[in-house]
Amino acid sequence: MTDSIDTESDTVWLSEDDLETVRGRVPMVYVEAVPVRVDELGEVTHVGLLLRGRPDGTISRAIVSGRVLYGETIRQALNRHLDKDLGPAAFARVPASPVPFTVAEYMPNPTLTGYYDPRQHAVSLAYVVPVQGDCTPSQDALEFAWLTCEEASGIDVSAEMSGGQDRLVRLALAHCARLP
Amino acid sequence: MTDSIDTESDTVWLSEDDLETVRGRVPMVYVEAVPVRVDELGEVTHVGLLLRGRPDGTISRAIVSGRVLYGETIRQALNRHLDKDLGPAAFARVPASPVPFTVAEYMPNPTLTGYYDPRQHAVSLAYVVPVQGDCTPSQDALEFAWLTCEEASGIDVSAEMSGGQDRLVRLALAHCARLP
Amino acid sequence: MTDSIDTESDTVWLSEDDLETVRGRVPMVYVEAVPVRVDELGEVTHVGLLLRGRPDGTISRAIVSGRVLYGETIRQALNRHLDKDLGPAAFARVPASPVPFTVAEYMPNPTLTGYYDPRQHAVSLAYVVPVQGDCTPSQDALEFAWLTCEEASGIDVSAEMSGGQDRLVRLALAHCARLP
Amino acid sequence: MTDSIDTESDTVWLSEDDLETVRGRVPMVYVEAVPVRVDELGEVTHVGLLLRGRPDGTISRAIVSGRVLYGETIRQALNRHLDKDLGPAAFARVPASPVPFTVAEYMPNPTLTGYYDPRQHAVSLAYVVPVQGDCTPSQDALEFAWLTCEEASGIDVSAEMSGGQDRLVRLALAHCARLP
Repeated sequence: MTDSIDTESDTVWLSEDDLETVRGRVPMVYVEAVPVRVDELGEVTHVGLLLRGRPDGTISRAIVSGRVLYGETIRQALNRHLDKDLGPAAFARVPASPVPFTVAEYMPNPTLTGYYDPRQHAVSLAYVVPVQGDCTPSQDALEFAWLTCEEASGIDVSAEMSGGQDRLVRLALAHCARLP
Repeated sequence: MTDSIDTESDTVWLSEDDLETVRGRVPMVYVEAVPVRVDELGEVTHVGLLLRGRPDGTISRAIVSGRVLYGETIRQALNRHLDKDLGPAAFARVPASPVPFTVAEYMPNPTLTGYYDPRQHAVSLAYVVPVQGDCTPSQDALEFAWLTCEEASGIDVSAEMSGGQDRLVRLALAHCARLP
Repeated sequence: MTDSIDTESDTVWLSEDDLETVRGRVPMVYVEAVPVRVDELGEVTHVGLLLRGRPDGTISRAIVSGRVLYGETIRQALNRHLDKDLGPAAFARVPASPVPFTVAEYMPNPTLTGYYDPRQHAVSLAYVVPVQGDCTPSQDALEFAWLTCEEASGIDVSAEMSGGQDRLVRLALAHCARLP
Repeated sequence: MTDSIDTESDTVWLSEDDLETVRGRVPMVYVEAVPVRVDELGEVTHVGLLLRGRPDGTISRAIVSGRVLYGETIRQALNRHLDKDLGPAAFARVPASPVPFTVAEYMPNPTLTGYYDPRQHAVSLAYVVPVQGDCTPSQDALEFAWLTCEEASGIDVSAEMSGGQDRLVRLALAHCARLP
C-alpha cells in the first residue's frame, strides 16, 4: 500500500474526487498477493517483491496490492493486479479457494492494527500466489526480485517495506510453514 | 443480507444519502456470522438462525450479517452485530483467527456469484461463531431458532433463506466437517 | 480408500504382515487429493475422479488417496500418489501451504465419523490439487474422468463413491466456494 | 514433543515394546494445542506454555502435545491431552473446525523439516485453543505460565523450547495475526 508504487488508475470507474470522498466514509476492499516460487514438490523457496530506487538511494519494496472495483470479483481483481505488476509472462496461479491466508486491516491511525495507510481504511484479503513464469513489471520505475524465505522475512528486507507489508510477508511464510 | 432483517442504524456515521451514493461506487465490507452450538468436545451440533414471520405466513431465516464501519475493525464489527442480533446473554465467541471460512461476494446481478444483494456489491467475510448463552434478538420482530446440522443444510430451511445465505450455511458446515 | 483402487505397494518398506499388525494398533497417516481443473482466473470448473468398471457393470469412483510412509513428508507422499494415479503428464500442483481443507478420520466402525475403512483407522489430510496436464492413470484397470462441480457433488456420482469420499468431494468444493 | 514432558501413559492400549516397534515403521499421529487467552473481542493476548525446572537450573517450555490413540478421534485426543496437561478447570475450547493452523512433521533426522523428535516420525495437527479458566497442570513437576504474544515469540522463550515447538508458537500467532 505504498503510495509510490500503488498507482491505481481506475479513473474510468471513479473520479479522483469521488474516490477521496468515498475513502473517508467506508472501508475500501483491497486484495494483496505475495508472489512465491515453489520447487517441484510445491514447497515455497522464494518470495518475490517489487522494488524501486528512491531518490535518496534507499530501496522500497512491496508486494502486489490493489483495490477491488465496483462489480469486480476478488478473483478478477487479483488477476488484474498481478498482470499489471508482474507482467504478461508471469503465469501467476491464484489459489482455487477464496479463503485468504490473513485479512489485513489498514488504518489511517498507525497504532491500531499494525497495518497503516495514511489515505484510507482498507480491508485487504491477502493470498499466496505461486508464479511460474518471468516477472517483468510493466511500470517503468519498478523492478522485481526473488528473495529466499530467510531474506524475505529478515530484518533488512523488512525495513525496506512499509505499512505493515513486512508482517504480511511473514504471515504468508508462516501459512506455508516456511517462516524460519 | 435480507433488507427486512438487516436494519443498519449507523446514521451517525453516514447519512442515508451518502450511503446510497457510496454503495453505487465501491464494494462495501461486510461481516457475517453463522452461530453454532457445540458439544463438550467442541463439535458443532446445531446452527442458529434468525427468523421472522412474513405477512403471507411464510418464514424468512437469516444468519447474523452487517456492515463494517469506517474505522471499525472486523472483530469489533462482528461483536457489534452479534450483540445486536443475538442479545447481551448470547456469549458469542468470535474465532481467534481473522481468517474467514469463506468470502461471499454479494452482487446486484444475481447471476454472477451465487450471492445476491439488490442494494449493493458487498464483500463479506464469513465466520463460524460458537454461542454459549441464550439468544434473545433485541429487535421486536425477530426470533431465533436452533436447528440440527441436517435441518440447517436441508432444502426446506434453504428455501426460507435469501441472497445465497443458505449456501453460506452449507459452506460453514462443510468447514466444520458437519455437512451431511 | 477403496481397496480395489488403493493398491499400495510399499512392500520394500513394510511387510504385509507387519502392516496388518501396525494397522490394528495405531492410526495410519494418509493423504488425499481432489484433482480439479481451474479456468484462467483460477476458479474451479471440474473435479477429476478415478473410475473403474465393476464386474456387475456398475462404476466405482475415487479421489487420489494413499498412505504416508515412514520418513516421507506429506508433500512427497502427495506428489507420489498423484504421479502414480494420474500419470506423469498430469502436472499436478500441490498447494503451497501444508494446511489441508479438511481432515478425514476413517474408522473401521462406519457409524463414528462418516468416513469408513474396514481395514484400519486412518487420519487423512485432504487437499485440493489443480491439475494442468493430461491424466493417464498408470494402472491398467483405472480410468479418469472430469466432471462439472454440479455433477461431482450430485447424488448420482456420490452413490458411485465409497467410504465417505463423496463427502470429501463436497467439502473440497465448499472450500473452493463451488458447492452449488 | 519433549520427552520429559510428554509422558504418554496409554499402556492399556499398546505395550511399550509394541509402541517402539510401531514407531520405527509408520508415522505416528499427534495433536498439539497452543493455549491462548483472548480478550473480550476474541483477540489473542497471551500464549500459555507448560514449563518445568531442569536440574541445571534452566527452564524447559512446551505446548500441549500428545498421541492420537487407535479408535480415538482427533477431537477426543485434543480434549484428553488438554485435560491432562491443563487440569479440569481450564475450560479449553477446541475449535469448531477440524482444520489445523499447520501440520508439523517431526522427524528423527533434525535437518529435514525443522521439527525434530528423536523417538519417531510424527505427523502433528496443531490447533490454537482459547482457554477461559485456570490452568493447573496435573503432573507434579509441571507448571504453567501465560506470556504476552511478544514474549512467546521472542528469542528468549524460543530458546527454552525444543523440537521446533517455538516455530509452532510463531505459526500459531501468525495464524491469529498476532505475530509481531
